[in-house]
Order: sequence, then structure tokens, then C-alpha cells
Amino acid sequence: MAVPPSTYPRRLLPLFLGLFQGTLLLFFALFITYDEPSAQAEDTNLVANQVYSTFPFFQDIQVMLVVGLGLLLTFLPHYGFSAFTHNFLLLNFSMQWALVLQGLLHHFHHGQIHLDLHKLLISEFAAVTVLISVGAILGRASPCQLLVMASCEIPIYLASEWVIVTCLGVLDVGGTITIHVFSCYFGLGVSKALFRATQQPLHPKETPTPSSDLMSLVGTLILWVFWPSFVAVLCQPGDAQHRAILNTLLAMSAGAITTVVASSLLERDGKLSPGHLQNGSLAGGVAIGVVADMAMPPVAALALGSLSAVACVLGFRFLSPLLRRKLTLHDQCGIHNLHGLPGILGAAASVVAILVASKDTSGPQPSQLSPTGGNASEVVEGQRGVAGQALCQAAGLAVAVGASLLAGLLTGAALRLPCLARPPERLCFDDSQYFKIQDEAESPEPDNSAEEGALALKEQV
Amino acid sequence: MAVPPSTYPRRLLPLFLGLFQGTLLLFFALFITYDEPSAQAEDTNLVANQVYSTFPFFQDIQVMLVVGLGLLLTFLPHYGFSAFTHNFLLLNFSMQWALVLQGLLHHFHHGQIHLDLHKLLISEFAAVTVLISVGAILGRASPCQLLVMASCEIPIYLASEWVIVTCLGVLDVGGTITIHVFSCYFGLGVSKALFRATQQPLHPKETPTPSSDLMSLVGTLILWVFWPSFVAVLCQPGDAQHRAILNTLLAMSAGAITTVVASSLLERDGKLSPGHLQNGSLAGGVAIGVVADMAMPPVAALALGSLSAVACVLGFRFLSPLLRRKLTLHDQCGIHNLHGLPGILGAAASVVAILVASKDTSGPQPSQLSPTGGNASEVVEGQRGVAGQALCQAAGLAVAVGASLLAGLLTGAALRLPCLARPPERLCFDDSQYFKIQDEAESPEPDNSAEEGALALKEQV
Amino acid sequence: MAVPPSTYPRRLLPLFLGLFQGTLLLFFALFITYDEPSAQAEDTNLVANQVYSTFPFFQDIQVMLVVGLGLLLTFLPHYGFSAFTHNFLLLNFSMQWALVLQGLLHHFHHGQIHLDLHKLLISEFAAVTVLISVGAILGRASPCQLLVMASCEIPIYLASEWVIVTCLGVLDVGGTITIHVFSCYFGLGVSKALFRATQQPLHPKETPTPSSDLMSLVGTLILWVFWPSFVAVLCQPGDAQHRAILNTLLAMSAGAITTVVASSLLERDGKLSPGHLQNGSLAGGVAIGVVADMAMPPVAALALGSLSAVACVLGFRFLSPLLRRKLTLHDQCGIHNLHGLPGILGAAASVVAILVASKDTSGPQPSQLSPTGGNASEVVEGQRGVAGQALCQAAGLAVAVGASLLAGLLTGAALRLPCLARPPERLCFDDSQYFKIQDEAESPEPDNSAEEGALALKEQV
Repeated sequence: MAVPPSTYPRRLLPLFLGLFQGTLLLFFALFITYDEPSAQAEDTNLVANQVYSTFPFFQDIQVMLVVGLGLLLTFLPHYGFSAFTHNFLLLNFSMQWALVLQGLLHHFHHGQIHLDLHKLLISEFAAVTVLISVGAILGRASPCQLLVMASCEIPIYLASEWVIVTCLGVLDVGGTITIHVFSCYFGLGVSKALFRATQQPLHPKETPTPSSDLMSLVGTLILWVFWPSFVAVLCQPGDAQHRAILNTLLAMSAGAITTVVASSLLERDGKLSPGHLQNGSLAGGVAIGVVADMAMPPVAALALGSLSAVACVLGFRFLSPLLRRKLTLHDQCGIHNLHGLPGILGAAASVVAILVASKDTSGPQPSQLSPTGGNASEVVEGQRGVAGQALCQAAGLAVAVGASLLAGLLTGAALRLPCLARPPERLCFDDSQYFKIQDEAESPEPDNSAEEGALALKEQV
Repeated sequence: MAVPPSTYPRRLLPLFLGLFQGTLLLFFALFITYDEPSAQAEDTNLVANQVYSTFPFFQDIQVMLVVGLGLLLTFLPHYGFSAFTHNFLLLNFSMQWALVLQGLLHHFHHGQIHLDLHKLLISEFAAVTVLISVGAILGRASPCQLLVMASCEIPIYLASEWVIVTCLGVLDVGGTITIHVFSCYFGLGVSKALFRATQQPLHPKETPTPSSDLMSLVGTLILWVFWPSFVAVLCQPGDAQHRAILNTLLAMSAGAITTVVASSLLERDGKLSPGHLQNGSLAGGVAIGVVADMAMPPVAALALGSLSAVACVLGFRFLSPLLRRKLTLHDQCGIHNLHGLPGILGAAASVVAILVASKDTSGPQPSQLSPTGGNASEVVEGQRGVAGQALCQAAGLAVAVGASLLAGLLTGAALRLPCLARPPERLCFDDSQYFKIQDEAESPEPDNSAEEGALALKEQV
Repeated sequence: MAVPPSTYPRRLLPLFLGLFQGTLLLFFALFITYDEPSAQAEDTNLVANQVYSTFPFFQDIQVMLVVGLGLLLTFLPHYGFSAFTHNFLLLNFSMQWALVLQGLLHHFHHGQIHLDLHKLLISEFAAVTVLISVGAILGRASPCQLLVMASCEIPIYLASEWVIVTCLGVLDVGGTITIHVFSCYFGLGVSKALFRATQQPLHPKETPTPSSDLMSLVGTLILWVFWPSFVAVLCQPGDAQHRAILNTLLAMSAGAITTVVASSLLERDGKLSPGHLQNGSLAGGVAIGVVADMAMPPVAALALGSLSAVACVLGFRFLSPLLRRKLTLHDQCGIHNLHGLPGILGAAASVVAILVASKDTSGPQPSQLSPTGGNASEVVEGQRGVAGQALCQAAGLAVAVGASLLAGLLTGAALRLPCLARPPERLCFDDSQYFKIQDEAESPEPDNSAEEGALALKEQV
């Protein structure tokens, strides 16, 4: 209401998205088909079984990304609708964009592309990186900036994932290195380049309320519940998948309790911080991804989950304020604490797991190292040896951190383009900037607002 | 609190529901049993596999209807509890009523009825029509009126579905014509006959608040996530089901982005309308149902999803106000925009898909037209020919629109019976009319209400 | 803010939990491993199928306990964050504690313990008892008290379950007697011993608001939707599981409608009580658990669901106030109405079902009585006879009630230890007692609170 109508180039967003949808349609018309229907009953059964074994996992992941992650971001009380909607928009945009890029790559090699649930799932994983990175600048960037960021991040992710998994043969079934570490440092790079050396002051609308904290925690727990599906969906069916599910459950359960311990010890009066709970409970899931299907005892999953939660809470308490002060690095949602630190811990754990597993069995056991048989199948562990595989994991981590930071900095610089319309400070964290929604706190007469205000909204019902 | 105790015939609702439950018990006692336990291990495996292949879909649909649709209706800030509860009550009532009616029909032909998960699912689908139709009169009708409406709509739906699917052989695996179009025009008919020529004024409690809009959007996205299960549950397992899932995912994803484009372009200041997002994101799912398992390229699913979203948003912006002014047609939730227009688009798309598919393969290919093998199995497409099938789809649409409008008008007239106690205008959209709940806005001293008011609620905790 | 900093021994909680996590790690390191990877392809398929047949049920149950039950407890408007978080914490703690205890027992008999999804599920079931019992004292106990209560309840539950299922051979696939009845009377015992003869006055923060009631109802309906998974997960796959799902669906649907009837009839002005809806809708699910897979006609499931709902609503209306006045028994969430009364009804129904089933087939049919083949397999029903089995069900109920009441009273007495720091009355039902969260009602200037208050929370974002 108090916003002057000309501050924001309102037509840029539909123009950008409209052009993108047009291109997508064209691309699909030219290159993408479905498989031919199966000719024989046996094949039909095979397809049916594939659907039954993948689709429930796929749905779980959709719930995580659309509902769980969306709600987690609603902790900003006046920006909940925007955070929830932008998360949804970016998921769809990034997923389609990843589909196009992966399709193009595939097309050059194999011609016509046959779409299936597995390809959609891979694109969804690519989109996750964007949803995580956005957390660093949440509330202080315009939708156009977020879309440009997504446009840049997806191709860089695909390249980085190709280097890490295909070239280096890194084992990372749950995306700890390829997704979490990558997207964290990409987001931090963007934030640094976007805000430069100006420290972001505490905005009055930034403080959560009890009800926004509760909604956010509901989102956390939805993510918590379905996390095993995210980690295990790409595992080899059978023992490896079973083990991945169990390891993830153990890590997340240990992480939940350790978060309470750590948060309680770190706060002077022993009260728990909602922010610690919302993030620390999930840290175990981030870290376990890279080792979930490896041969390691259950206790290792518990220990990794606990360590990650401690790292996450310590990060919120000490590292984030330090980065803010010393590097003027702004990290709105604390993605470095939830995705960066636990991701690095997980990568280190994978090195240890590989080295220890080989000692136990006196010699490299490719089948133990790579139970997924999936992405890593092109790598010949037998020839590489255990030390080589351990080195590769470390190299993969280095690539993920380096490439994402660099690319993030460049992307962040691009986001400073004036046409992308970063909102001025006083209009940050405000739903009414982007939606025909009346901010309850903005209305002149609070008693009246719910009753008679916002008549203009009539057409929406 | 301000409600005089005698305005509402409080005993009618329990009387009606109590009688219904008694009848249901009697009917079940007389006619319904379970299958005999399987005698052989093979049969046991078969039953187990059927459960594993149907039950996850069934649960997804339950989440959609109970939680997703219920939350979608909570956009009315003072009527959220009623909308959520009435949706739940109507789902159960309608499902049981459909079970009785279908059981009776079946009984006349085959004797004893063996209940299974599939029969429950079919009844649940019938109940969906009621939940959609209610949207037209939400907030302005009493629970008794809603129950009477459900009682009328279920048998008419069953008859209409029988004509459309069994007699005309319409292919409609996702219920676009049989469920969405039917329930939309039934609801509009009821609304027209109930409110006649009196235009409903804007009620002060009708305006969403930011938090009610957010809850509603959470409901939308729960529906969005699980929609593929709704469309694909009745498909033939294997390729057809796989294709139905993929087509639905593509249509919904394209619809989500197109909604943002359309809403942003249509509003003067480029801000998005929450109502558009809450509905437009789902329009693709409504339209795709009728063609989801047909032989068509993926681009068609994308295009249909985008078109439906545009139609939905245009409907909210232009058609709804027009209908309100010219026809004094009241449509509280905009069901015509979410279910009517996209449903008609989907039906048209099915005609095109059938005609195009035949050209591609130079001649009618029954197996391509009817990959479901399910409902349409009784129809011999080979004899009918492609043009015939296309005509049937159009005829099915006409039957759905005509029958539902007529029946809706008659039902709406019946709802005017004084004993059903339509609430007077000033008591509309008010939870405290039906629940022992204290409306925060009603309490004389707002600062006090949460603390000391509503002592009468003590027994509930 | 108004809380003096020294009222609460803040370090006890992290100390207790930290020690527990350390012990857990040690225990896992010493005793727990995974299965060896399957050597043959056949075994791999078997494991994969077991995962696919159990994991979706497991996830459903996780959603129920973490999200559904957590939200159900948020009806206290100023205590929602605490209720939700404590529920989550207790679930994880109790599950791990049950894992340790079951592991120890198993270890004495069989050595090394091989962890799998089924063992985690069994531990989760044990944890449910704690989550239910807590309802009796919700809001008036400190987190330390809740953890001590959980520490006591889990071993007693395991012993009681062993007596009831293994020794007495009680058939109870859905945990009606072993979980619901047990945890209800345990909770009531704790409440009685904790609060003794002092009647708990109505606390001003105890009254639900419309929005807290809505959140709570969302939790109820999430539980409602997934309840069939809870009842059927341990059934024998095939007919028994199919029947258990159907019976649960029927009982819950009938219970939902009957709750409306009963609540409407019992309130003077015919308005429905939110508390009745939040609990009554689930009563059918509690009662059906013990008979869900038995040979009985569908009408019995409907009748049992209706009866339980009536019992639950009557309990809220008449029995709870009576117990409060006559026995000064405090039951915050009304667990006696939701878990006690319907549980007893279910146990009675199981006696009837067993007696009737035998008459129908003129002689005891072990296969009919024990279609689960699971827990009850060690009992030879053939030798015991029908009357014996019926007697056992009654004996199981008596054991569950007696053992839990006694153990609950002792546990409640232990909770009075001063070091566990029961909050004084004026600090009950208050999130800000345990979390760095600012109670909106507490802030001196309401208009200001959301904007500028709670600056201390900055680090969480």
C-alpha cells in the first residue's frame, strides 16, 4: 500500500517466464517423446514394477521440496507467502530448465530423448540446489533475481556433477557433496557478490513470531520424516537401499537429540533456540548422504548424525556471526550451517569409511565401495585402489566447493544488474511487495483490517 | 455469542446423520461381506500385490481430499474451521452414501457384495464431486443444506457416470469430464437456484488474511503434489500408468509457471493474486485427466497444462465478475475457473488427441485409444471408428454439463426449504455459528480474549 | 522475559540427553550390526521386496507420529511450539531407548543384533506409548520430567507387551490393548501421583483459539488418513492385511460421522465442540486395532467405530469432569476418552468376535482366529480352544490396565523429585519457558512486538 507503483519493473517476471515456457514447449516438441508401449506382457510387468518401486519415493521427495522446504522458509512472519510461493516457482522452473539442458546434452549423443520418471527425478535433484542456495539471500532479492540465479546455477551444477561423479568417480548416493556442499557455497558466493561489503542490518520484519516459528518447524519435520526417501531413491534396490534407509533414520534420530543437547548447552539460560531445532534436526541427513549405502556399522551413522548436529548448532552460534562480522557474509537461513558444515563432515566421513572398509577386508572390495552400481559404475575401483577412491572423494569435495564459490560470485555479480530490481531495504521481507495481500501490520487500523480492508481482493474468492 | 439461540434447528443435523448411520449399518449387515480368505499361497501373493500396488495411491488420494482440499478451503479467515470440518464430514458421508447406492445396484445384479479397496476407491471418487460442488456456495449454506445437496448429487453422479463411461464409452481415466465438469456445473446450478437473482454482497468476513491465504496455499500444494496419484490410480499398470503419471507431472509443472505469468500480466501493478496461485496451479491437473494415458507426445501435456492455467486465471479475472453481474451467478471458490473451464479444455483436447493419434498411424488403433483397458473395455472402438470415439467424447461432455446443470438447479431449489435453515447474511462465514469456538474478532476486548475468554471450552482439553 | 532466570535447572536436560546419547553410541558400537549383504540375486530381490512392502507403511507411521500427533497437541495456543517439539524429542528418545532395551534382551539370547527396518518399527511402536501417556500431563510438566517418564515407561511397556502377547497369546495386531490401553492408564497413573489431590485450576493460557484449534484438527486428520497403515503394518500380507485396512477405514469413517452426531446432541445449543472432533474422529481407529484382521463382517467394523466415537464424546462430556471432581484426576488431553474407553471397547469386541467366529464355523478355527500368523504364532489356539482365547483377551486387558496403573503411579511419584523442576502454575503452558521465543501475549506493547521485539533471536535466521 505504501509502495510507490513505479519501483519495480513488473513486466520483467512474466516476460522472462513466458519466454522460457515458449522455449520449453518448442524444445519438447522437437526432441522429447515417451518410450514405445511395451510389446510383451513381461515388459509391461517390468514397467509396472519400476513405477511401484520409484513412484512412492518420488512422491515423498515432492512433498519434501514443495511442502516441507516451503514451510521451513516461512519463519519470516511477513514474508511467508513469498518464501513459500517462490520456492514452488523456482522448483518448477529449475526442474524444467534442468530437463532441457540434460535433454540437449543427451540429444547430441543419442538423438531423440525418451522421458521417464527417472529423468524427471534427476532434474528434480538439480532443482534442489537452487532451492538451497536461495536460502542465503532469502527476503532480500527480487523474484527476477532468483530466476536469473536459477538459470545460472542449473548448468553449473550439471557440469560440476558430471566432473564429480562421472570423471572423478566420487561415490555420493545422497547428494551430500554434489548437491548440498555445491549449493551452499554457490549461495554464499552469490550473497557475497550481491551484498558486497555492506553489512545487512537487522530488519524489523526479520524476527520470527511464535506462529511463524511453529510453521517453519512443521516444515522441518516434514523434511525429517521423508529424508530417507531422498537419500535412498537412487540406491541399488536390495541391501544397499535397505542400509541407506536405516543409516539415514539413525543419523537423523541421533541428530535430533544432539541438537537439543547442543542448543541447550550453548544458550546462557538453557532455553532452546527454534532456529537450532529447525536446522540442526536435519543436519544428520545432509551428512549421511555420501556414506549411506557404504559398508559401515550402524554406530557410524549415529555418530555422524550427532557430529553434524553439533557442527550445525555451533555454526549458528559462533561461525555465522563471525562470517557476518569479518567477511560481511550474509546468510539469511544459515545454509552454511545446515548444508555446508554437515556436507564437509559427510565427505570426510566417506574418506574414513572407504579407508576403514578396506582394512577390515584386507584389500579393496569394489563391491563394498560401490554398492549402488549406479553412477559409479563407469569407474573401475578395482584398478584405482582404496587410497585412490579416498583421494577422489576429497577431490570431489574440493571441486564442489571451488567451482560453486567461483560460479556463485560471478552469478551474484550478475544479479546486481539494475534491471533485476533488488528491493530497497525498507521493502524487504514483505509479502505485499509481490502479492496482492494485505500485511496485517501495515494496515492503519488493526481492528478493522480483517473486517473491511483489502476489498480489492474480492475477485480471488 | 451474539447469536440468538433459536435461529437454527440444531437437532436436524444429528437426526439426519444418525438416521443415515443407522441405515448404513442395516445395509451393511444385510448385503456386504468380505471376500473369502484365499485358499492358496498364490492367491495370497496376488492379494498382497494388489494391496501394495493400490494402497499407496489410495493413501495419497485420502491426503489430497482430507488435508489438501480441506486446507485449500480455509482461505476464509473466520470460516476455516467450518470449511475444514464440513469438507471432512461431507467426504465421509458421501463416500458411505455412494457405497450404499453402488452396493444396491450391484446387489440387484449379482447378490452379495464383496467389499474391497477398489470399491472404496470408486466411492471416494464419487464423493469428490460433492466436495467440489460445495465450493460454489461455501460459507453461505448450513451443514444441513450441504448434506442434502450431497444426498442428491451422489445418485445423479452415479447415473451420469454410467451414461458417460458405460453407455457412451467415453475415455476419461482421470475423471475430467465425469468428475470435474459434472461437479462444477452441478454446483453452479445449485448456487443459481439457491440464491436466485439476489446478488450476494461482499461480506466483511470474506476477505482472506495473509495467514489464511498461506494455509490455503499449503492445501493447494498438497493437492499439487499428490495429483498424479489421483489421475493414475485407475490406469492399467505398466506403460499407461507410467505415461499418465508423467503427463500429469508435466501438465502441473507447466500450469504452475503459466499461472504466475498470467496472474502477473493481468494485474495492473504486476503483483500476483493469491487466489490465482491457489487455483491456477491445479488447473493443469484437472485438464490432463481425460488424456493422461492416451498416446500423445509430452509437449501436448505441457501445452494443455499451460492453456488450462491461462483459462483459469482469465476466468477469475473476467468471466467470474461477468457471471456475477449478468447472471447473478455466485461462485464463492471459483469452481468454474478451476474445474469448469479446464475440464472443457481437457475434453476438447481428448477429441484432438483421438483424431491426431489415428492420423499418425493411418487408421484407428483401438489399443492406442484405450490403453487403460479398464472402464472402456466394454466399448468396441474397432467397430466404432476414430470419428465415432471423438464424437462420443464430445457427447460425454454435453451429457455432463447438461445433466449436472439441470440436476443442480433442482437440488438448489430443494435447498431453499426453510427447515434447512440457510444462515442469514450477517451470520455467514462464521465458525462460531456451528462450533463452540470463539471468533477472535467478535470478542469485546481483544486483549483479553485469548487469555480468559471462552471458559466454556474447558471440557474439550 | 518475566521469568526469573534461576527457577529451572537448565543444565539437567542436556546432561541427561548427552549421557544417553553416549550410552547409545557405546551400545551400538558393541552389539549392533547390519545383515551381511545378500550373496545371491534371489536374496537381493527378497530384500528389495521387503523394503517396498514395509517402507511406505513405515513412512506413513512416521508422518502420523511426528507431524500428525505433534500438530494434534498444538491446541494450547501458547504452548504449541513446546508440545510439537517435545513430542518429537520424546519420539526419538523413546525409540532409541526401546532399541537399546530390546537389543539387550535379544543379545542375551542370540548374541550380535542385526538391525533392520522391522526392529526399528517395533521400537517406534514402543515409543508411541510415551507420546500418548504424555497427553495426561501436557503443559504442566518439565521436559526433564517427560524424559524420566519415558525412561520408566518403555521398559514397563516391553515387559507388559511380552506378558500380553507372548505369554498370554493375546491377538492384538493394531496395539489396541498393548499400546493404547496400556499408555492411557500409565499416563493417568502418572498424573494422579504427580498432582495428588490438588485439583488443577483452569489456567488462562489453556483455552484454545480458533487458529490453534484448526492446527490441532489438521493434526487429527493427518492421523485419521494414515491410521490404516498403523493398524495393518504388522499384519500378514495378503487377505489379513487387506481386511485390516478395510476394517480400519470403515471404523474411522463411521466414527467421524458419529462424532458429529454425538457432539451435536450433547451440547445444549447443538454446536460442535472442536475437542470432540479432534478426538472422537480417531476413536474408531483405536478400538478397531485389536480385531482388524479377525474374521468378522464389515458391519462390525462400522458398529465398533460408531460405538467408540460415542464413548469418546460421552467421556469428554461426563466422565472427565467426574474424574476431575471425584478423583481429582487431571487428564489434560483427555487420553482416557480417546485411548482408554475405545481401547476397552475394542478388547470387549475381540472377545465377542472370537466367540461368534467359532459359532459360525461350529468349532474353533485357529486359522480364523489368528490370521496374522505373526506374534500369536507361538500360541496353539487349537489346544487352547475358543473360550480360552476369549479369556486370554480379557486377561490381557486386565494386565494392561493393572500393570500400567501401578507403574504409572510409581513413575508419577518419582516425577515429584524436586530436581526435575515441575514448573510453577503461573509458568505452565508457556513456550517462552523452554524456548527462545517471545510469547505474543506477554509483550508489553502488542503493536510493537512483531516488529522490534525479540532481537535476541537474530542468530537463528
